[in-house]
Amino acid sequence: MMADTQARHLQIGAVVFPRIDQGDLTGPFEILSRVPDSTFHLIWKEKTPIPDARGLILTPQMTFPEAPQLDLLVLPGGPGQEALMEDEVVLAFIQRQARGASCILSVCTGVLLCGAAGLLKGVRATTHWSAHHLLPYFGAIPVNARVVVDGKYITTAGVTAGLDGALRVVVFLRNDLIAQQIQLAIEYAPEPPFASGTPRTAPLDVVAAARSAAREITDARLATAQRIALRLGVQV
Amino acid sequence: MMADTQARHLQIGAVVFPRIDQGDLTGPFEILSRVPDSTFHLIWKEKTPIPDARGLILTPQMTFPEAPQLDLLVLPGGPGQEALMEDEVVLAFIQRQARGASCILSVCTGVLLCGAAGLLKGVRATTHWSAHHLLPYFGAIPVNARVVVDGKYITTAGVTAGLDGALRVVVFLRNDLIAQQIQLAIEYAPEPPFASGTPRTAPLDVVAAARSAAREITDARLATAQRIALRLGVQV
Repeated sequence: MMADTQARHLQIGAVVFPRIDQGDLTGPFEILSRVPDSTFHLIWKEKTPIPDARGLILTPQMTFPEAPQLDLLVLPGGPGQEALMEDEVVLAFIQRQARGASCILSVCTGVLLCGAAGLLKGVRATTHWSAHHLLPYFGAIPVNARVVVDGKYITTAGVTAGLDGALRVVVFLRNDLIAQQIQLAIEYAPEPPFASGTPRTAPLDVVAAARSAAREITDARLATAQRIALRLGVQV
Repeated sequence: MMADTQARHLQIGAVVFPRIDQGDLTGPFEILSRVPDSTFHLIWKEKTPIPDARGLILTPQMTFPEAPQLDLLVLPGGPGQEALMEDEVVLAFIQRQARGASCILSVCTGVLLCGAAGLLKGVRATTHWSAHHLLPYFGAIPVNARVVVDGKYITTAGVTAGLDGALRVVVFLRNDLIAQQIQLAIEYAPEPPFASGTPRTAPLDVVAAARSAAREITDARLATAQRIALRLGVQV
């Protein structure tokens, strides 16, 4: 689907922002920064250092106006995504880049930014389990899967699903061989100690505790999604 | 084994350094920074920002002399580990912290720093597949496993194995319930697109290409390991 990108230098860029979940960014960075003949940019309004949701300091390398047209736009999520849902500067950047990009990869709740930019109408998509019920407010078609590919949109479930999504992106932008070499380089043969990675497989008390911990931000995200559905003319 | 840590505020600290592999740090950070009643410190000689091996900028929060006694010392790896193998300031910090820590977690080639500090004699350990044959030079007992627990030392295979290792650490420092809640929060139910995460399972051409790409640093690491074996009085 993206054969035109096979031969040329790839411009890859991720939007970083205050209270991002750093894993949504650094997981894909670990894979995508290894793609031969590519450059990975961290992009935000300013270049001053930014703390992630738990205090890891990330430093953007360029501002929105400085960014080249990207071949791959990466949209991470995290609690800080909520503050950007009606930020016209951020949404305009996503819209402009998405028009020219070969591929848009969202990780976790980064998909909500994509939705707020009006890009997901009729698009099959996934996100973190705590926000999955919000996808219809953006006109997206929710799919219960870890990675969903629909045209040039690749959306993933929560945080660590960015690893699986990024490897799929490497296949699309390059090929199987390069994706497999990267998987071997980062020794990605996971052995999770429990089966509690999804609400379908986790023990009930674990799910209840996790839902309770996510309740406040989930309620806020719902209210925002309802406002945005009105703006986008989406009926749920 | 670490019951004394269950009730108190945990001091967690990772050594960061130039040309670290950021995934060795940010994977465990994603998990360990979620442990209730804990603080995660990034520690280095100076507080100036540091680029990882592929350009991601990390910012240390404290210097070695400023660090409190850690309950958990995290040692990431990456190409930059090689420059620290005979750095007395770094090795003295690791030795001092390891004495008082309840747990030492090494990720990828971070184990070599632990070995260079003389801490692995007779300890069962693992590391990235490209460096696994170097473990005996530090007196360690190589184990072909993704995560190896021996007393207070938890060592892991390459990069992404830090996720599996960090969840095991949460079980030791806290309990199963908290580890499972964290696994669910980061939706860690991995679906790697290929079986190429280890040399035993990857296609032969993928392994050959990866070994070739790692040859230069592997040769350098061998020469260093041989010098250190002499210093430590280890016969291989």
